[in-house]
Amino acid sequence: MSKRVDEILGWYESDNPGVLKNLRWMMDTGALAGTGKFVILPVDQGFEHGPARSFAKNSPGYDPHYHFELAIAAGCNAYAAPLGFIEAGARKYAGRIPLILKLNNSDSLFSSNDPKPAVTGSVQDALRLGCAAVGFTIYPGSNQRDAMYMELRKMAEEAKAAGLVVVVWSYPRGSSLSKKGETAIDVCAYAAQIAAQLGAHILKVKPPTEHIEQDAAKKVYEAEKIAVTTLAERTRHVVQSAFGGRRIIIFSGGEAKGTEEVLAEIKGLADGGAFGSIMGRNAFQRPMADALKLLKAVQEIYRAAK
Amino acid sequence: MSKRVDEILGWYESDNPGVLKNLRWMMDTGALAGTGKFVILPVDQGFEHGPARSFAKNSPGYDPHYHFELAIAAGCNAYAAPLGFIEAGARKYAGRIPLILKLNNSDSLFSSNDPKPAVTGSVQDALRLGCAAVGFTIYPGSNQRDAMYMELRKMAEEAKAAGLVVVVWSYPRGSSLSKKGETAIDVCAYAAQIAAQLGAHILKVKPPTEHIEQDAAKKVYEAEKIAVTTLAERTRHVVQSAFGGRRIIIFSGGEAKGTEEVLAEIKGLADGGAFGSIMGRNAFQRPMADALKLLKAVQEIYRAAK
Amino acid sequence: MSKRVDEILGWYESDNPGVLKNLRWMMDTGALAGTGKFVILPVDQGFEHGPARSFAKNSPGYDPHYHFELAIAAGCNAYAAPLGFIEAGARKYAGRIPLILKLNNSDSLFSSNDPKPAVTGSVQDALRLGCAAVGFTIYPGSNQRDAMYMELRKMAEEAKAAGLVVVVWSYPRGSSLSKKGETAIDVCAYAAQIAAQLGAHILKVKPPTEHIEQDAAKKVYEAEKIAVTTLAERTRHVVQSAFGGRRIIIFSGGEAKGTEEVLAEIKGLADGGAFGSIMGRNAFQRPMADALKLLKAVQEIYRAAK
Amino acid sequence: MSKRVDEILGWYESDNPGVLKNLRWMMDTGALAGTGKFVILPVDQGFEHGPARSFAKNSPGYDPHYHFELAIAAGCNAYAAPLGFIEAGARKYAGRIPLILKLNNSDSLFSSNDPKPAVTGSVQDALRLGCAAVGFTIYPGSNQRDAMYMELRKMAEEAKAAGLVVVVWSYPRGSSLSKKGETAIDVCAYAAQIAAQLGAHILKVKPPTEHIEQDAAKKVYEAEKIAVTTLAERTRHVVQSAFGGRRIIIFSGGEAKGTEEVLAEIKGLADGGAFGSIMGRNAFQRPMADALKLLKAVQEIYRAAK
Amino acid sequence: MSKRVDEILGWYESDNPGVLKNLRWMMDTGALAGTGKFVILPVDQGFEHGPARSFAKNSPGYDPHYHFELAIAAGCNAYAAPLGFIEAGARKYAGRIPLILKLNNSDSLFSSNDPKPAVTGSVQDALRLGCAAVGFTIYPGSNQRDAMYMELRKMAEEAKAAGLVVVVWSYPRGSSLSKKGETAIDVCAYAAQIAAQLGAHILKVKPPTEHIEQDAAKKVYEAEKIAVTTLAERTRHVVQSAFGGRRIIIFSGGEAKGTEEVLAEIKGLADGGAFGSIMGRNAFQRPMADALKLLKAVQEIYRAAK
Repeated sequence: MSKRVDEILGWYESDNPGVLKNLRWMMDTGALAGTGKFVILPVDQGFEHGPARSFAKNSPGYDPHYHFELAIAAGCNAYAAPLGFIEAGARKYAGRIPLILKLNNSDSLFSSNDPKPAVTGSVQDALRLGCAAVGFTIYPGSNQRDAMYMELRKMAEEAKAAGLVVVVWSYPRGSSLSKKGETAIDVCAYAAQIAAQLGAHILKVKPPTEHIEQDAAKKVYEAEKIAVTTLAERTRHVVQSAFGGRRIIIFSGGEAKGTEEVLAEIKGLADGGAFGSIMGRNAFQRPMADALKLLKAVQEIYRAAK
Repeated sequence: MSKRVDEILGWYESDNPGVLKNLRWMMDTGALAGTGKFVILPVDQGFEHGPARSFAKNSPGYDPHYHFELAIAAGCNAYAAPLGFIEAGARKYAGRIPLILKLNNSDSLFSSNDPKPAVTGSVQDALRLGCAAVGFTIYPGSNQRDAMYMELRKMAEEAKAAGLVVVVWSYPRGSSLSKKGETAIDVCAYAAQIAAQLGAHILKVKPPTEHIEQDAAKKVYEAEKIAVTTLAERTRHVVQSAFGGRRIIIFSGGEAKGTEEVLAEIKGLADGGAFGSIMGRNAFQRPMADALKLLKAVQEIYRAAK
Repeated sequence: MSKRVDEILGWYESDNPGVLKNLRWMMDTGALAGTGKFVILPVDQGFEHGPARSFAKNSPGYDPHYHFELAIAAGCNAYAAPLGFIEAGARKYAGRIPLILKLNNSDSLFSSNDPKPAVTGSVQDALRLGCAAVGFTIYPGSNQRDAMYMELRKMAEEAKAAGLVVVVWSYPRGSSLSKKGETAIDVCAYAAQIAAQLGAHILKVKPPTEHIEQDAAKKVYEAEKIAVTTLAERTRHVVQSAFGGRRIIIFSGGEAKGTEEVLAEIKGLADGGAFGSIMGRNAFQRPMADALKLLKAVQEIYRAAK
Repeated sequence: MSKRVDEILGWYESDNPGVLKNLRWMMDTGALAGTGKFVILPVDQGFEHGPARSFAKNSPGYDPHYHFELAIAAGCNAYAAPLGFIEAGARKYAGRIPLILKLNNSDSLFSSNDPKPAVTGSVQDALRLGCAAVGFTIYPGSNQRDAMYMELRKMAEEAKAAGLVVVVWSYPRGSSLSKKGETAIDVCAYAAQIAAQLGAHILKVKPPTEHIEQDAAKKVYEAEKIAVTTLAERTRHVVQSAFGGRRIIIFSGGEAKGTEEVLAEIKGLADGGAFGSIMGRNAFQRPMADALKLLKAVQEIYRAAK
Repeated sequence: MSKRVDEILGWYESDNPGVLKNLRWMMDTGALAGTGKFVILPVDQGFEHGPARSFAKNSPGYDPHYHFELAIAAGCNAYAAPLGFIEAGARKYAGRIPLILKLNNSDSLFSSNDPKPAVTGSVQDALRLGCAAVGFTIYPGSNQRDAMYMELRKMAEEAKAAGLVVVVWSYPRGSSLSKKGETAIDVCAYAAQIAAQLGAHILKVKPPTEHIEQDAAKKVYEAEKIAVTTLAERTRHVVQSAFGGRRIIIFSGGEAKGTEEVLAEIKGLADGGAFGSIMGRNAFQRPMADALKLLKAVQEIYRAAK
């Protein structure tokens, strides 16, 4: 039992004990158990980017069992995937690692300036499959954002009543944002705030850049001298934007890249107070041994932080 | 990960991964984690027998938190109690130990020759409170048995769909049985069979005596020379009666008694292949330190068995 | 494809193709495939009579898988059992033999002059477990008969809409009948009629005796010179009472007995036009090899009949 | 198209056109088409009295198709039977004659001083089977009468909404009535009133006797000099009791008897203004040719009346 | 009983025994019974392309019974069609061959760059008609893809709970794809992945061409040297993309063509590890005798493969 875990659970004061149980399950699992830090393996790229782009580089990843094995071996806190991947291993690995069922997904055979994922799973699916959490993606900045927020609201209400944790991928995207703006510091911070206000228990955003997208925001960032030069500073600001640090917020790893680059980014996030990372392609596109080595290194950085 | 746990989970072949997850949680928890053996703390005596009869002997037990602490400290696989006791600690101890919400209970301010407990909780309660299982008591031999079986059927269907484990207390009692008959070997074996046929995942019965209650059964026990002289033999017969050993079956401790008496009984149960014990009064009516010592001794007996 | 099977299916003219599919599945399965004759293995005695009385004589029968294996090896048309036994093997043996989920059951720890089984399963259970049919027991003659008829009506309506076959065990019993009357020819014929009028697709009654229970009936049997001297004659009358032969009606084997006695009874039933037998104790209480031999002999008698 | 039929339909002024369509279908069917008179064949005796007592005398009647053929050949307005008999012929004879699905039935293997039939069919069954009407039996005078009235109310509400005609068999019976009282003139008239007040479209009662059962009624019958000496007088009084003649009321034939006896009774009923007869045993227990002759004679009497 | 069938069923680990029963039924049916290979007859072209384009070439095909006869005579594993065609033969051929009810369909009287079929059947229809499976078409690449995915999600959840197999036709099409791109290897592989992630049990895609449609994919195919020169290589890649071979994936036959051309294509698919073919126009547009010959030849190729 860890004081830090209890402290974090204390923030979720309106949630029922079922949600707290599942949050604790995640925080008591894997290499970072008891630290309140997270490294989560997400594998929805097969759906989002297509199978070859996702798995050709490390072809055992075509097999859904591979990712369960990887997440467990690496001591991740949880494994997140769409319905098909979860169904394909949920019995064999039942209870071995907390599962996050992604409830909506987009594919890349059609692309839209104003995207909205399709709902692809249900809270009832999450219960029958033994999941600890449901995951949901929103695209603030899309002209379809409200439809997503409203779908999330409904599913989150149902999930919470059933004791499931709600994890929200908050990825600004859409016709109202520049490409650069999708990871702008003001936009990332705003995305965190929106997900938190929608009632998410765990927020997932992208590592923010120094760019500031919105003029109205720019004035304030300058007037108030908000420090956004280093990744650590920016991370600190995003964490602060997630209810002054009272919500678990983790950061995506983004595109596959070199190990040093990955670890440098993690260092910045960890120094800025990030609760952890959700790292897909940089994990499952490496050979198993390399992936385990990288994930251990990432865990060590988070464990050492603060 | 334990081969024995996987073997046991394999028996529950029609259940969804959610049920398997919660079964594994129980079997991966506490001092007996990985062995497929169980020691569970149940505290429904406050409801069933009244507070003074239950808690005066060891008065910290009036406080619901005490039993969570006891179950966790003792390394029990799970803690079982009625709605009120679970609600009183479910947030503080969320995720620390698998909880079994007792869905029906009887009090002793009214007593009936043909008893039937009141339904006192719901599957939805179990989900919001983060429980791993629901518990339900049936009294075969009561003229109200069918009403209980039908309530159980409905709640079990709902619980299984939501991924919850179903634990059935099968306690023969009622106008058709003699007092001695309630723990007769033929009746205990029959009680196990009924609970298993009703779809229970975990069955709980009383340690059987050598007495044979029903004439029709007596003929068979004699003709087939079923060994029922020692507790181990009787236990083996009851385990066999639970689908040839394909269902987890545990035994209640019954009335408070001396330590040696308790351990001797456990020895007999363990030698007969019992999956474990559910031990209430002999645990929580002793001072904490004594209770911990006793429960450890019980766990050691089960660990050593077979 | 068999003309006889098509002829029989033609009688169920108000049923949807889903029901016909499952009826055909039964008639196309096993050693009697294509003949329109039935030998079904039922194993609900663990629930109805207790485990030792049911399985001690041939102890592999404690294991639920044993009965799936027996029914398949023997070339039975179907295997019938309560929820627990079906759940314990439905995945391993999925699709290997038509399953009949018994939706209600009685135990013998309580006995009543006016019995009524408890509902122990649902149509939804039958669907998720891949069953071809549901089974339901009624006790005409019990003062609780109407409650049973009404439960049956509701479950049968639901089952038929889902394409499931409805099998009714019609066993007269209760305070208005003498013990001898339970198998009286007039009562058995009446029990068949009631089940058929309630909409059953397959009726199961006991082999009738020469006794006539009801005075009002006696007058007619005598006036109309209804032949009831031999078992074949009585069977013919019961088959006629099941809508002039337009409903599948099968006969239970009753208590365990010697092989010659069993085969003599089957001969009488087959000569009288019975569609088959449902044979439990006489099958699963013999060692597997003996049971297979007996069931083959029974099948040969039915195949040779008419 | 007949003025009389329109007149009769006009009485059912709160019913929807669906109900009127089915009422007209009955009145436009068979030998009495257009007259507003009825001869209906009911065959629920297999359920009510048992198969041998019902069908042994004329054994083709064991076959459910026989009764469809009889009703059609005889030019009946409708054929009424329980679920099983209707299901067994509803496809072959679909649309050939209006069907009345009996929604409740009693068997004689148990008898009670205060009877109540079991509900054995549903409005949904009647729709899927193409029926024009549902039938329901009530036993005024039974201590269970209210349960029947309430079941009827619910089913009638549902039936009317679906455009089905509601036919009520109103047969006084129970511990509060003498045997003689079951057909007493005051009781029959009262039974008609109750059924009409419960919303029945077509009422079926027994031919009343001169006996007056209730003292309170007797005083009025004497004071008001209500004529009850002849069957015609009594019938007129019962018809009057059914909303002054604004409800279709028909009379049962009762036990099988000689042809002259039957026709004499019909003459009395017809002279008293009965809308018709529902004649079971006197029809289907005669050989087909005799039955057709009798039914034609009955129809002639009704056609000639008034 | 076949080890290969058991192995394949083992992949569907989160599904209930009802789904496994129906999957086994398909794999135990027809000429390829026991091999885990499939040849399925689909006839939805009457709806999709119009009657003359579909049936004029072999005019017995206008009659729905023709296709049941063809599928049975040819020893297909299943027959798939829209509601009307299934309803037109479901009673006559009940239980003779597993049926797949197509739950959505498009007609060609309107054509759209971004198509979406109309939902034309329900899970309840599939149950009442005795189907083993439901079929659903998605068009990845259409701007209406998400609406299709969400309809599928809902119907698949309902179908699985009722024990029905879910077959998904995944046919990329829409304004974001070139005509050539619809069968591009990257797009076909992606289409398989999407269907699998949506929870399909059986996936149906088109035979892929060497073309690579998407630039982002092209880079990976080149970098990882994914072999796509021969049809066998491409098939192997698509099978791999269906969860590393853990999902049954079959290939459509496409336009009617010459026998040699058909068999050459089948050879390539079979060599690449395809589980089978779903062959419509090439079957039902040939005279029966020719179709049977062709289908046998196709089955022989699959039987011989690997």
